[in-house]
Amino acid sequence: MAPRMADAAAAPPRGFPPTEFAARTARAQTLMAAARIDALLLTTEPEVRYFTGYLTQFWQSPTRPWFLVVPAAGKPVAVIPTIGADCMGRTWIDDIRTWSSPWPEDDGVTLLADTLGELAGPAPRIGLPQGPETHLRMPLADYRRLLGLLPGAEIVDAGDIPRRLRMVKSEAEIAKIAHVCGLVSDVFESLTERLQGDMSEIEIFRIFKLACLQRGVDDVPYLVGGAGQGGYGDIISPPSERRVGPGDILILDTGAVFDGYFCDFDRNYAFGHATDAARAAHDAVYEATEAGLAAARPGACCADIHRAMQAVMDKAGALGNEVGRLGHGLGMQLTEWPSHTPHDRTVLEPGMVLTLEPGMTFAPGKVMVHEEDIVIRETGPQLLTRRAPAAMPVID
Amino acid sequence: MAPRMADAAAAPPRGFPPTEFAARTARAQTLMAAARIDALLLTTEPEVRYFTGYLTQFWQSPTRPWFLVVPAAGKPVAVIPTIGADCMGRTWIDDIRTWSSPWPEDDGVTLLADTLGELAGPAPRIGLPQGPETHLRMPLADYRRLLGLLPGAEIVDAGDIPRRLRMVKSEAEIAKIAHVCGLVSDVFESLTERLQGDMSEIEIFRIFKLACLQRGVDDVPYLVGGAGQGGYGDIISPPSERRVGPGDILILDTGAVFDGYFCDFDRNYAFGHATDAARAAHDAVYEATEAGLAAARPGACCADIHRAMQAVMDKAGALGNEVGRLGHGLGMQLTEWPSHTPHDRTVLEPGMVLTLEPGMTFAPGKVMVHEEDIVIRETGPQLLTRRAPAAMPVID
Repeated sequence: MAPRMADAAAAPPRGFPPTEFAARTARAQTLMAAARIDALLLTTEPEVRYFTGYLTQFWQSPTRPWFLVVPAAGKPVAVIPTIGADCMGRTWIDDIRTWSSPWPEDDGVTLLADTLGELAGPAPRIGLPQGPETHLRMPLADYRRLLGLLPGAEIVDAGDIPRRLRMVKSEAEIAKIAHVCGLVSDVFESLTERLQGDMSEIEIFRIFKLACLQRGVDDVPYLVGGAGQGGYGDIISPPSERRVGPGDILILDTGAVFDGYFCDFDRNYAFGHATDAARAAHDAVYEATEAGLAAARPGACCADIHRAMQAVMDKAGALGNEVGRLGHGLGMQLTEWPSHTPHDRTVLEPGMVLTLEPGMTFAPGKVMVHEEDIVIRETGPQLLTRRAPAAMPVID
Repeated sequence: MAPRMADAAAAPPRGFPPTEFAARTARAQTLMAAARIDALLLTTEPEVRYFTGYLTQFWQSPTRPWFLVVPAAGKPVAVIPTIGADCMGRTWIDDIRTWSSPWPEDDGVTLLADTLGELAGPAPRIGLPQGPETHLRMPLADYRRLLGLLPGAEIVDAGDIPRRLRMVKSEAEIAKIAHVCGLVSDVFESLTERLQGDMSEIEIFRIFKLACLQRGVDDVPYLVGGAGQGGYGDIISPPSERRVGPGDILILDTGAVFDGYFCDFDRNYAFGHATDAARAAHDAVYEATEAGLAAARPGACCADIHRAMQAVMDKAGALGNEVGRLGHGLGMQLTEWPSHTPHDRTVLEPGMVLTLEPGMTFAPGKVMVHEEDIVIRETGPQLLTRRAPAAMPVID
């Protein structure tokens, strides 16, 4: 029996109650205590938002650093530019320390050092995410200056703490992802009516984005793909001015957003007709997704999902995969840990939101990629996207 | 005489000819030679795109690192995940080295170290951006591993090289920015017809984004603002479900994009009526912009622009400014160097694209911000946006 799709009819409430942030913080503090970490230092958008609810597109400006310190006990403390004080003041955070930024001579470094010293003591162990899929969002020169101001501090890798917390979503988070998945499923299904075989890729992308906004998503920050005769060769490019025509295969892969939470899935369309090879490749990635759904149960690991999906594609004559994995986590970011690769042993738990993204090169320079979004439940996977049609749709 | 707006009627061509990338690379290599830098290591989206033309929204996925090495002579060398090979292969870059990512055990680090060793010799000086407005987009643990693989290397701050190059735009870059500024100017002017005094902020934001896409922008990655009775208190928040009503002042501040280049400007609207204080504040920031236009001439510096604009607002009784500056550079990013602050001594040169963004707190918790985009010409500033109306528009 195919997994049932989550109900996405009504828009869930925006934001989260303070209890959600308190629970996230408490879980982080439990992990911090186990790792003997006195304070967690966070510098990136999703981590700051996860513990505060601070949601703004202002992060697109690279000018100013933003800091959040999670102490061993109590609420997180924000150390941020003055421009963010009002917006942060509407979150559950009480202790907001600001400086007027940009101030290249001392862009929050002294204020952050003072805050860490106050919250974590004279010789603290400070946790900072340093491992896979992390980066430090502050100038490297400022980071060195910060270390100089904290001579007694030991900096340890704490990337595992946000990773472990964020990988397992709350029901409120799942509802937001399910909602945007439902809206975009509607849009994908409407494309056979909206698209025609003489539009440019740029026009097609614009039509898709307009339809998503009209349907109720907040934004479409990610839309990639393209079309090619008998198949496409690349799935991350922006659209070109080339007009699609009979025999083209089009992929659209999108990350649309509702209240700061992403969907990430794709759909394929043939214009006029598809070659046998393209149809067979679509069948293969569809069947690989079915195998992924069967494998995506609590207690299995990402490598199991990879093996199940790859076996279907190998049997169908796959020549390779340039994506490097067959799906991944998603939520506050378009892609998150874990990854469906042979080497990722992350064990699936209820509440994990994942993509299943089988992709294969089916002829030289021709790729076929498919993607659905799921949440792991006690009983197995639940689809958040409405399942793609088994046969690739044809647009006349 | 008011500066003339640049002509933005026809869409400029997408992309750049290879000569533009060759010229950028040659200028970087001149600066590298002067600083005795053997190779420039770049990890962030705008820097990689600036030297290659590699344009993709895939950077939104934080999973994989991307590297570009600019050698002392010759074309840059890309060290990137396999998923980007096809897209990078369509740029002017010849030497593209790939690995299958994500691969946490060695996510491109060995391949990058080998490439740097080959291109820069056994004891190279490697330039890496480390100063204001930069960050290192790779895990800190991987960076330490890279340094371990390059025991003879000296890493020096090279943030000034992309900064100096990117601050002065080519005519082809200016044409893209002028185009998106023109499109969004049209949309802002149409809002008095499109908006009504009972819409929620969320509805208003959606109407604005739809209008921008319909008018021809590629994306609206940045839209912030909000409304409040007699004035707003914050300019970086997402929209709320609150409905605007008589006496509200609305600001919309947007960064829309054409072919990877941003506009960044705002407009203010009153619903029904505006208080005398709000109208006086709008007059003040409008007049401050005029003062900024008069000051924005080649040879002046950013601090001069700041002083000219701040003087107007001080005279009008400004209580402060929470933005931290009165405008900035823009282009491939929503905000770029320089900043109009008292301490930024960057000298204006023809080809610099800047915002003029006077903002003031005019009553406790009430802010008024205005913004226009300009390019510096030999003869003075040229507006890229169509000048806001001198009096704040009122929507009935």
